Formats: sequence, structure tokens, C-alpha cells
Amino acid sequence: MGEYRIIEVKRSVFEDNNRDADRLRAQLKGDGTFLVNLMSSPGAGKTTTLKRTITALRDEVRIGVMEADIDGEVDAQAVTQAGAKAVQIHTGGMCHLDADMTRQGLHALGSAEYDLVVLENVGNLVCPAEFDTGAWRNVMLLSVPEGDDKPLKYPLMFKNCQAVLVNKIDALGVFDDFDCGRVKERILSRNPDCEIFFVSAKTGEGFESWLGWLRREIHRFKSGGMEAPRHYDA
Amino acid sequence: MGEYRIIEVKRSVFEDNNRDADRLRAQLKGDGTFLVNLMSSPGAGKTTTLKRTITALRDEVRIGVMEADIDGEVDAQAVTQAGAKAVQIHTGGMCHLDADMTRQGLHALGSAEYDLVVLENVGNLVCPAEFDTGAWRNVMLLSVPEGDDKPLKYPLMFKNCQAVLVNKIDALGVFDDFDCGRVKERILSRNPDCEIFFVSAKTGEGFESWLGWLRREIHRFKSGGMEAPRHYDA
Repeated sequence: MGEYRIIEVKRSVFEDNNRDADRLRAQLKGDGTFLVNLMSSPGAGKTTTLKRTITALRDEVRIGVMEADIDGEVDAQAVTQAGAKAVQIHTGGMCHLDADMTRQGLHALGSAEYDLVVLENVGNLVCPAEFDTGAWRNVMLLSVPEGDDKPLKYPLMFKNCQAVLVNKIDALGVFDDFDCGRVKERILSRNPDCEIFFVSAKTGEGFESWLGWLRREIHRFKSGGMEAPRHYDA
Repeated sequence: MGEYRIIEVKRSVFEDNNRDADRLRAQLKGDGTFLVNLMSSPGAGKTTTLKRTITALRDEVRIGVMEADIDGEVDAQAVTQAGAKAVQIHTGGMCHLDADMTRQGLHALGSAEYDLVVLENVGNLVCPAEFDTGAWRNVMLLSVPEGDDKPLKYPLMFKNCQAVLVNKIDALGVFDDFDCGRVKERILSRNPDCEIFFVSAKTGEGFESWLGWLRREIHRFKSGGMEAPRHYDA
């Protein structure tokens, strides 16, 4: 606890990312490691959400975290303080992670030791949606201050996620033009099967539903009853 | 007023974006059209800032707007309602605009008719920072809910901007871990010449300083006393 490494990952020389992603998913299945790819805009609350999730689950499952950023290491510091093993991945200026970069991060983390590994992707709603990382579930955070029009502007991100957490609901009083019913409708029009949770990572409101879903998905993965997510290309 | 077109732009077949950008800047100088490239995360308040800026300046200068998005047209609708001519640029899935895409947008807008054209870039802190659009000034919005650690994580964006607007200061009461002194220090450590304005596009607080800077820059451009911005590569 309290330790993390910084690694520099390089883009694969092979161009078939979808094949790399399927191969990585098969490897994770063999290892029993459930990989979640967590995406959002910069500052939507990925790290705070992750810290609260780690604190809630760390006595039930072994959790590892990969923090991807262009630069810096503040997130890896934060999650190790919450009690998870972490690696900080520097992407060399890249705006997303592909499956091979994810594989390099998992190797550095020693992923077979974990039941759950969360990849905190680069803060970006565009490019990460286009690249299958090999994760078994893709989850995105949309924060209330960003506005309820985001599903209209970043359709691929919303299509490629199995769950959306609408975060910072504690700020709904200030951002009173954000309409929870409307955002739900817009997400479901892009992706009718999407699970939607309204949460505050700051106060913990709404977290029980999200944690319940995550526990069920881990169980389903471990028991072999999970199908690979469908990936839509741009 | 109240009209806008949607255009689909394509990536240049030429790969020398820096050359394209310099050529476009020279053309804009000849036309007397001051182009500002406005960048931020999704939902930081670019459109609201733009609307308030248009309302304040529309009787002094002729303003055109290019709204770049993966999809949708809500922003072009909003700025035309504020009284500017606009084109909605669809990027075909691209996460940024390059100089040639910007040129196509300016052509559709008929840019020589305007004193000021604002390009609202795709909401993204990574890729737009890497591509010189040919603008005479690069401005970014950082919103308070995103957190004061963003200059540490997205250094290139902060290096390539001549001004940063720290927006949504009306929400500082809710996001009380955001430290205005610290964010200023972090921005200036990346970019010592950066102009920083603390504003609320919602309430108008702090706008006079920002508008004053913009007026002075337009004047400096028109009088021929402006140097091209230095562009740092990734």
C-alpha cells in the first residue's frame, strides 16, 4: 500500500487494435482479472469516484489501478492512499490508450494478482471512445457541470459504454439547468441497454446502486457468464 | 442573424500542418480578420462564454463563429441567437481541427466580412493543443469544477494558449477545494506570459477584464502590431 510506479508506454507497431483487444480480454478471462475502462472529460471526478469505490470494496476484492495521463502522477498518489496498488501510465502525449498500451500497463501492475483492475483512461470524450482497450466493461462519468447535452455531442462515447455515472449531483443546486430526466433520455437514445447511476463521489450519494452493479458484474465475470462488450467504430 | 450552415470538413491530404497554419495566418492578416481559437474540456462553458462575449461586442465589431463538433448543432443555434453569424463544422469523428479544416470553415463562413472570428474547437484538452489552426490567438477555458490540477496534467494546452479564462467562479462555494492562487501559479509555471482571467460566463463576473484584453488584441492585430503565437509541439 502507498506504492506506485510510473511507466512510459508506447503505441503498438501492429495496427490491428481490435485483434489485440480481443486477445487481451481472453488473457484477462484466463487470469480471472475483471478489467474496467473508466473514461470521462478532464475533471469529471474519475479519481474521486475510484477512491470511494476502492474504500468500499477493498476488503472484498483485490483491486489494482492503472492511471493514464499525458503527464503528472497526482492520481496514482491519490489512489494508493485509498488502499489500492497502482501504476501511473504516461502515454507520451497520446490522447487515449489502445489495447497494447493497456497490456503493457497490466504487465507492470502484475494483473493476475487482482480480481478487479480499473484503467483510468486519459480525460477525453473523443479518442478513448474509438479504441477498444481490451476491458470487459467500459464505464464513463459525466459530471453535472458539463451539461446535459453531452450525449448529443459525443455519441460514440455513450454508445461504447455499458454504464454511465452522472457525477457531482451535489452541485445540481448551482447547475440548475441540468435536467436529470433529459440526460437519461439522451443517453438511452444513444444506447438503450446502458445502466445509468446518479451519484456524488464527494458525498457518497447514489453509490450503493453503482457498487451493487459493479459487484454483480465482477461475480458474473468470475463465474464465466459474461459476454465481451460490443465495440462500435467511429 | 439566426442563420447557420452545417459543413463537413475533411483532413488535409498535405501533412505539413505548421506550413498550412502560417499560410492561413498570413491570409487572415491580409483580410483583417482576427481569428481566435477557443479550446476547453467538454462542458467548460465555451458556448456560454461566447454568447456573452458576442452580446458585449456585437455593436463594435463584426463577429463570425465556427462551431466544431463531432456531431450535433446545438452550439451554432445558440450563438446565432446571440447575434453572430455561424457555421457548424462537423469533423467526421476527428478530435481536433487542423489548419486546413479551419480554412474550409472560414471559407464557408466568408471570413473576410468579419473583424473577429472565433473558432470553438472540439471539447478536448489533448489533441487540439497539438495542432496549430492558424489562429492569431489561442484561448482556453478551464472551469472550476474540473479542478485546479489540470495545468499539471495537460501541460501542452496551457503552454500553447495566450490567455486562460478560469470559468464558473460562481460555483467556488460548492467546489471549495479549488484554489485560485494555486491554479494561477500552476498555469504561470507552464507559461509565464499567459494572461489569466477569473470569470463567470453565467453571471458576467470578471468579464470586463477579459473583454478589455480582447478589444486590445483586436486593435493590436488591426494596426499590424501583433506577432504570430509561438506553437509548441507535443
